[in-house]
Amino acid sequence: MSPSLLSCALNPQSVAIIGASDNIHKIGGRPIHYMQRHGFAGRIYPINPQRETIQGLPSYASLAALPEVPELALVVVAGDTAAAAVEDCAARGVQAAVVIASGFGETGPEGAAVQRQMVATARAAGMRLFGPNTQGLANFGTGAIAGFSTMFIEVPPQDGPVGIVSQSGGMSAMAYGLLRGRGLGVRHVHATGNEADVTVGELAWAVAHDPDVRLLLLYLENIAQPELLAATAAYARERDLPIIAVKAGRTAGGQKAASSHTGSLANEDRTVDAFFRHHGIWRVRDPHAQALAAEAYLKGWRPAGRRLVVISNSGASCVMGADAADDVGLPLAALAPATQAAVAAKLPGFATTTNPIDITAALLSNSGLFGDVLPAVAQDPAADLFFINIPVAGAGYDVDAFARDTAAFEAATGKPVAVAAWQDSVAAPFRAQGIATYANEAQALGVLAQLADHTALMRKPRAPALPPVKVALPAGPAGFMNEVDSLALLARHGVPTVPLRLVSSAQQAREAFAAIGAPAVAKACSPDIPHKSEHGLVALNLQSADEAAECFDRFWHKMGTLGAARDGVVIAAMRRGRHEFMVGARHDPVFGPVVVVGDGGKNVEALQDCAVLLPPFSTQDVHDALRTLRIAPLLAGVRGDPPLDVTALAHVAVAVGAVMAGANGAIASMDLNPVLVGAVGEGAVVVDALVERSTHLDADHMQRAHAHPA
Amino acid sequence: MSPSLLSCALNPQSVAIIGASDNIHKIGGRPIHYMQRHGFAGRIYPINPQRETIQGLPSYASLAALPEVPELALVVVAGDTAAAAVEDCAARGVQAAVVIASGFGETGPEGAAVQRQMVATARAAGMRLFGPNTQGLANFGTGAIAGFSTMFIEVPPQDGPVGIVSQSGGMSAMAYGLLRGRGLGVRHVHATGNEADVTVGELAWAVAHDPDVRLLLLYLENIAQPELLAATAAYARERDLPIIAVKAGRTAGGQKAASSHTGSLANEDRTVDAFFRHHGIWRVRDPHAQALAAEAYLKGWRPAGRRLVVISNSGASCVMGADAADDVGLPLAALAPATQAAVAAKLPGFATTTNPIDITAALLSNSGLFGDVLPAVAQDPAADLFFINIPVAGAGYDVDAFARDTAAFEAATGKPVAVAAWQDSVAAPFRAQGIATYANEAQALGVLAQLADHTALMRKPRAPALPPVKVALPAGPAGFMNEVDSLALLARHGVPTVPLRLVSSAQQAREAFAAIGAPAVAKACSPDIPHKSEHGLVALNLQSADEAAECFDRFWHKMGTLGAARDGVVIAAMRRGRHEFMVGARHDPVFGPVVVVGDGGKNVEALQDCAVLLPPFSTQDVHDALRTLRIAPLLAGVRGDPPLDVTALAHVAVAVGAVMAGANGAIASMDLNPVLVGAVGEGAVVVDALVERSTHLDADHMQRAHAHPA
Repeated sequence: MSPSLLSCALNPQSVAIIGASDNIHKIGGRPIHYMQRHGFAGRIYPINPQRETIQGLPSYASLAALPEVPELALVVVAGDTAAAAVEDCAARGVQAAVVIASGFGETGPEGAAVQRQMVATARAAGMRLFGPNTQGLANFGTGAIAGFSTMFIEVPPQDGPVGIVSQSGGMSAMAYGLLRGRGLGVRHVHATGNEADVTVGELAWAVAHDPDVRLLLLYLENIAQPELLAATAAYARERDLPIIAVKAGRTAGGQKAASSHTGSLANEDRTVDAFFRHHGIWRVRDPHAQALAAEAYLKGWRPAGRRLVVISNSGASCVMGADAADDVGLPLAALAPATQAAVAAKLPGFATTTNPIDITAALLSNSGLFGDVLPAVAQDPAADLFFINIPVAGAGYDVDAFARDTAAFEAATGKPVAVAAWQDSVAAPFRAQGIATYANEAQALGVLAQLADHTALMRKPRAPALPPVKVALPAGPAGFMNEVDSLALLARHGVPTVPLRLVSSAQQAREAFAAIGAPAVAKACSPDIPHKSEHGLVALNLQSADEAAECFDRFWHKMGTLGAARDGVVIAAMRRGRHEFMVGARHDPVFGPVVVVGDGGKNVEALQDCAVLLPPFSTQDVHDALRTLRIAPLLAGVRGDPPLDVTALAHVAVAVGAVMAGANGAIASMDLNPVLVGAVGEGAVVVDALVERSTHLDADHMQRAHAHPA
Repeated sequence: MSPSLLSCALNPQSVAIIGASDNIHKIGGRPIHYMQRHGFAGRIYPINPQRETIQGLPSYASLAALPEVPELALVVVAGDTAAAAVEDCAARGVQAAVVIASGFGETGPEGAAVQRQMVATARAAGMRLFGPNTQGLANFGTGAIAGFSTMFIEVPPQDGPVGIVSQSGGMSAMAYGLLRGRGLGVRHVHATGNEADVTVGELAWAVAHDPDVRLLLLYLENIAQPELLAATAAYARERDLPIIAVKAGRTAGGQKAASSHTGSLANEDRTVDAFFRHHGIWRVRDPHAQALAAEAYLKGWRPAGRRLVVISNSGASCVMGADAADDVGLPLAALAPATQAAVAAKLPGFATTTNPIDITAALLSNSGLFGDVLPAVAQDPAADLFFINIPVAGAGYDVDAFARDTAAFEAATGKPVAVAAWQDSVAAPFRAQGIATYANEAQALGVLAQLADHTALMRKPRAPALPPVKVALPAGPAGFMNEVDSLALLARHGVPTVPLRLVSSAQQAREAFAAIGAPAVAKACSPDIPHKSEHGLVALNLQSADEAAECFDRFWHKMGTLGAARDGVVIAAMRRGRHEFMVGARHDPVFGPVVVVGDGGKNVEALQDCAVLLPPFSTQDVHDALRTLRIAPLLAGVRGDPPLDVTALAHVAVAVGAVMAGANGAIASMDLNPVLVGAVGEGAVVVDALVERSTHLDADHMQRAHAHPA
């Protein structure tokens, strides 16, 4: 993959339209119309054996009849004819084909087979394939528009710094329309449809290499090639290109709907979240949120912090602004005494000069107050972000002056300044001054918080690549390894585990107890019994060799009764931590190794208080993840308890990530629970663990994981 | 309080403007202008000694010069002159005065003293006072506009079914403007400012009695008279009048800002939430959310359930719709086979006929599909709510026909139908058909969910009033009672508590152990040591009288070392539950008794997993509250455990509510933790409790609590 590989698609010198129409309202007519209208400088070849000319251009009977082999072919015909056209394109050396027609992979096995054949044909010929079931491609930088969206009629295009890459044509059109509605220019509007060959990840890689693109918006229903998207994100971070993604199918209902839309597989949503976070991609709910935030990014604002100053001409809006700031976690900046004094000198006595700053309704009788106050706060070193909330203005207010003063203020601070004004008559003069203006405080502060948090995420140091860890799984069948083998595997890779012995007689149990000492624990050991305590097969606080022997006999008998394989009985040291955590991991078929850290113990599945990390990650990343847990307040110690040894827990999680990565798919899952964590300095110890061997190595994933782009 | 008491303010026959101006842009000129313009049929008396006429009306030198005593006086003058005008009004028998000027209670002790004097003067004369620091009152049903908002110029008024009552003038104007911008008519726009006398609660009571009002919107920064608001809410539920409230100062930052805005006291926000829920008032974040939801309420929709049908012409929008439905907790309805067959008969083969229904882009070539599909789903009995998501339309689509078909569909179902269409050109025809049309799926589904949930909340049976419980607190000083007295108080009121004895010698400890049996617990008993375990003053699992005696000696000595009052040592039965809960209560200075139920144990303060209830509440209310806890998944039993005896816990909470209500403020707080709850049938038992006597009885609250409106 290289950006140039796709340049035939995004910036072709010649385009054939197979199934061209003279009617500009038809799917076969619109792309020709768009290319002629938006200044495409290359050659356009309508193909339609029924006509002599189409939209003023000569029409050709077939690809064979063209004066040259086109770089790009847009296949507008449907069904079997589309499949035949793809074969023809491949045979003649077309570099890329865009297949519009639906009715392939998304309809079921039969359509999927035809789609697979299309891809095979294309790959054999070295041709790239877009779609099928796509709205096509559009590059307003060159006028190369191999797509049919009606939105380009609804809202006139204007070239600009935004690129949109989307699985869905509808969502790409919507993002385009929303951005244009906000007066922002858009360069790229591309849809990938069923992604039989080219995915959002690969197309995003190409668009990210357009040096004029300064903001990249993605819409995905399925992350099919995470490694390509990861490479795109890494390159984008390097050149300070923010990526804002919508990943639909977040919920069970949405995933079901997605699978019947494009035949996508479901991605586990918390893993998707972790993937985006890992790669510095900001995830939002819908194209509205993408468009809402775009202007602030395009201003080039990259705030150094998140301390906010709120200014309003309404006391109530100061309150609402403070509430909304808290909702998105923006702290109010503590203004310097000098700033407060300067503000106080400008405002009436009953105004508030702490943050929020209430200019009061005195603004109604003195419109100059606005311009007086802003310079006083512009240079306060505590401020990272500014928010001006104007709930009421209009008749009696010099709104034009407010807007001019705000523009001067923005220029003076060089920091983000957002305005909330819901009245069109108030918002318009601010927008005319190029000020980022929103309908309400929730929107304005949401954007400021996103900008600050996304900037921090993009600039966060990445954990170094993992050193290669060679994981030697003991021989055995697919499925769960027993506890002893599981813990031994972890111990071999540096994870602290509880001292234990596996015994197979009462006498051995006595000896083990003597070696390990009181208090000890006895646990049945069988790969068939993952949840031992539910069967009464765990005994705590053994104080004597007799008790150990008694437990052995009892457990051995019970395992027999249950018909379970009897690997023996574990005699282990009994450890107490201050809190039980869990560390889990699984090999995801799409994302590869996925590690989970969270609250441990019996109720892990029921309470789901956990965070997801993708290797490689650092202990600092684990600290950050733990801070998102509901039990986070316990980490620092409560009611006189000392802080927990979170760093020791983080080392366990990092080691588990390294083992999962080194196992290269051979380990399906790991479950370390509980991981007992003591006070700082006391460390962490894994008391119980289950490692699951994969039923088969996911060769396809392993191959893709190594196919990083150059 | 009665609605008629305020009619002089909302519907006066005569209005004097003290400080009248001929300039319609000045605060003293605008009300006169508004009243003349909006058809006020009563008498308007401008008072300004400097002029002969004002805006075509005779101007008077003083109140004394008027031909009659006006029912309402609008005081536009400032400072001391305003205070003098209030005195004059009171002396002459004016029924209500609206004081616009700022600079009173919100500025500090001095202004507050002047404000208190104003109220005293008014009360002595039987005159009601609005403000000070208020934007005033406006009734567009009668044209009685004793307010100066510029918003009535920005957006022309139209009488309608919405009433707005707000502390803040700015927020009332904003709600008014947003509603009018959506084409909705507004009857009442009233602001209460500093609420020296009349509060939002009392004004809302009056507005709720206007039979033309079908939706009531409130904005509060402080709930000063919850009993009046509660009475309003009860009356509103009776006549099916929904109330949607914004309570600003939700967060610490917002509360701080609010106190410098109107001098309000902070309300604890979870208690505010509980108060609104208790009284069937729906709380939203801001006036935007109020205006957004208004149309759906005014349609008269009161959905019987929350099962949703999603319909779109875009597969991606089906996915987004399903995600957004999940976000707001709306389940997708399972369509009947007959419905699916009927839909399938109308749509192309590749369309999805399960819910969400994907009409597909085939709509582009056949605009009739829309009208074909809707009737097929209109009568499905599983559907409570319908959502039509149109992300792309315009050129090539017959949007007018879609809008007509949707209107016919809405009429046929009689159920809520919401449309999302962000393109103005698409939304406009739908709006023209009177269809509730939103910018995106999050807004549309948010409104549908709110409507369904608020309807259920309004119709939920209320717990009957508590039977009078006479609570006799044992004599003692303010502050914490010891554990034994605390548990005894609870036991006297039917709360199951652990069997225990208070002992004051080692011999008594032996006797107590003999009576109670093993296993037992020993705990130091001192009102000075609320957190015993932090001092090592709890011993568990005592198996012998010797151990009990040893603990007594040790604890007695330790209490002496700590210098704590030694009430004795508790020997109690040791009980084990399946889960530790907590039940807490406090006497809130504004809301009276407040009960908290939640996860118990040591980390209660740190983890804050609890729900707030206001008495009277039923065991069913406690069940509902417990379902909102993060530990809710544990209630039904996890990994083979039986379900917990939640009903027994609910009875404890109800009893605590009754005791708090019966104590009438004499109990400041109670803390029952842990409350051990067993499996269903095993009951609940309070193992530890602390009751705190009030330092003073809140006589003012108790008086107000009985001052319910007639």
